[in-house]
Amino acid sequence: MLSEFSLIDRYFAQRARANTRRAALGIGDDCALIAPAAGEMLAVSTDMLVEGRHFFPDVDPHALGHKALAVNLSDLAAMGAQPLGFTLAFALPRPEERWLEAFSAGMFELADRHDCELMGGDTTAGPLNLCLTVFGTVRQDLALRRDAAQPGDDIWVSGTPGDARAGLAFLREEWPHAPMDAADAAYFRAALEYPQPRVALGLALRGVARAALDISDGLAGDLRHILVRSRVNATIDVDALPVSEALARLPRELQLQCALAGGDDYELCFTAAPQRREAVAAAAQQAGVRVTRIGTINAPDAQALPSTQPIIAWRDGTGAPLNLTLQGFDHFHAD
Amino acid sequence: MLSEFSLIDRYFAQRARANTRRAALGIGDDCALIAPAAGEMLAVSTDMLVEGRHFFPDVDPHALGHKALAVNLSDLAAMGAQPLGFTLAFALPRPEERWLEAFSAGMFELADRHDCELMGGDTTAGPLNLCLTVFGTVRQDLALRRDAAQPGDDIWVSGTPGDARAGLAFLREEWPHAPMDAADAAYFRAALEYPQPRVALGLALRGVARAALDISDGLAGDLRHILVRSRVNATIDVDALPVSEALARLPRELQLQCALAGGDDYELCFTAAPQRREAVAAAAQQAGVRVTRIGTINAPDAQALPSTQPIIAWRDGTGAPLNLTLQGFDHFHAD
Repeated sequence: MLSEFSLIDRYFAQRARANTRRAALGIGDDCALIAPAAGEMLAVSTDMLVEGRHFFPDVDPHALGHKALAVNLSDLAAMGAQPLGFTLAFALPRPEERWLEAFSAGMFELADRHDCELMGGDTTAGPLNLCLTVFGTVRQDLALRRDAAQPGDDIWVSGTPGDARAGLAFLREEWPHAPMDAADAAYFRAALEYPQPRVALGLALRGVARAALDISDGLAGDLRHILVRSRVNATIDVDALPVSEALARLPRELQLQCALAGGDDYELCFTAAPQRREAVAAAAQQAGVRVTRIGTINAPDAQALPSTQPIIAWRDGTGAPLNLTLQGFDHFHAD
Repeated sequence: MLSEFSLIDRYFAQRARANTRRAALGIGDDCALIAPAAGEMLAVSTDMLVEGRHFFPDVDPHALGHKALAVNLSDLAAMGAQPLGFTLAFALPRPEERWLEAFSAGMFELADRHDCELMGGDTTAGPLNLCLTVFGTVRQDLALRRDAAQPGDDIWVSGTPGDARAGLAFLREEWPHAPMDAADAAYFRAALEYPQPRVALGLALRGVARAALDISDGLAGDLRHILVRSRVNATIDVDALPVSEALARLPRELQLQCALAGGDDYELCFTAAPQRREAVAAAAQQAGVRVTRIGTINAPDAQALPSTQPIIAWRDGTGAPLNLTLQGFDHFHAD
């Protein structure tokens, strides 16, 4: 295997060594040595991607390289952290040059765009598995935490959640009753395979937003994480949900299922005080990302125990209650 | 899977939340937030363990939990870094309560012993795969790097390398011609399954040793990493190699193969100036670990190109050259 694994050196380690600027000591020693600037914290997140669960066995390796890093950068974005570097550990059944070339190209194109350096790693033979740990920096008092939402806050979402779920449906040929034209299918597929981590938006929202997270498992489920940790409830205006032109051409029920329960979008969901609406709009403008106000954070029931599950009240545009069933609508990234 | 994956919450996340002292923000948000103290660097290392390659499918989960963290702590030890915390990402075919209970117990017993906190993670369904990233702290000028060996340095090794390889041979029933008694077999197996990361020794060697690394792939191969990065050669006195009493009961050829080419020991190999012999002994005494002087760092050939492979001259106790063949002696952790 040695000569085969030297391919990995060519596609990753050499590149990483040439690249190293932020790590005082990078690939080639027992550890990388890094430090945030004075006054900053290091934000750390780790994600593991497994074949069949997070991507199809025949996935384009360029797209896989992009996405493996994108889902990790998205965690930094949700924290308002500036990307610094990452470690990459992966198991491969067999190193193949063309696969590694495309995979590393997809990964490093995104890494370069966000000035995020490969700082260390590990490779082994085994069933295909990718495990990345990303590092970013953020001032502790500016970090966009999940537990900071307050009653009265607006609830915002970036982009048009749901497109990635429609891309999954296209690849799975899941909705024969709801045909898509080729352009829409390609658009949905790009949303699934090349999610864009909202790093610039996360940075611009520091000092503007209160709570934030990224949507990996669907807006409805992920919003609950903010509600649980902030001990609040929420009202969502379902008619305000931003829907892409392509998604708007699908039946309304599928639109809502995708937008609310579809995973893999990696858009940001965040809250901000109503007084900060102009500042939110300015941050979105600066980041070049669409943001949409979709609801309000509510105070918890005064009698609620700490263990009480949060309540999301779904409303239509007139404020009338909607009864939504989002159970059982699976998506790709189910854990 | 949700109720099954709530087991993971019970065995890992709850514990980690209760534990969190060093992370300003730990499990439950998009990122953990950590920072080294002023003047210190964060040492980061990542290792991935795959079933069949790094452990047997029927491995005791308690031992696996220990070893998955131990091999990562060993990288911190080799850097002279103080453990701070770790992230754990793992794929499991199916969460089983007894397995998770034993695995987490093995991992947290070692984590507690080294005051190293679980700070984040990810779990997914998939072929068994463990990926840990550890964080430690070290002053940059005291870090034990691989590129710091100097001609004239003594070469030292901790413990008795080779025992883990004999443990692997026992489990594989590899040496029918060299029977072991049950006590020796149990001793070898413990060396393989419960390696003790030399964290205390690494800390004590700061300011004493020059170059250091941990022995994961065998002393001969790993020493080469120091030689390559420091651009030096070495002479090793094979008769000086420390051999455990149990290993000494095996045929001499197996002893040498195990001690020089056996992997998975996680002892430290380090260099220090001859003037520091008393300081090295004091550090070993303080850490409660045996250390043995096994050779000398030599200047490179004056005509050597940067790409020239380093030379290890093998000698016996009288200084006479030995011709050692270490090729093809595989071990468990082959990448």
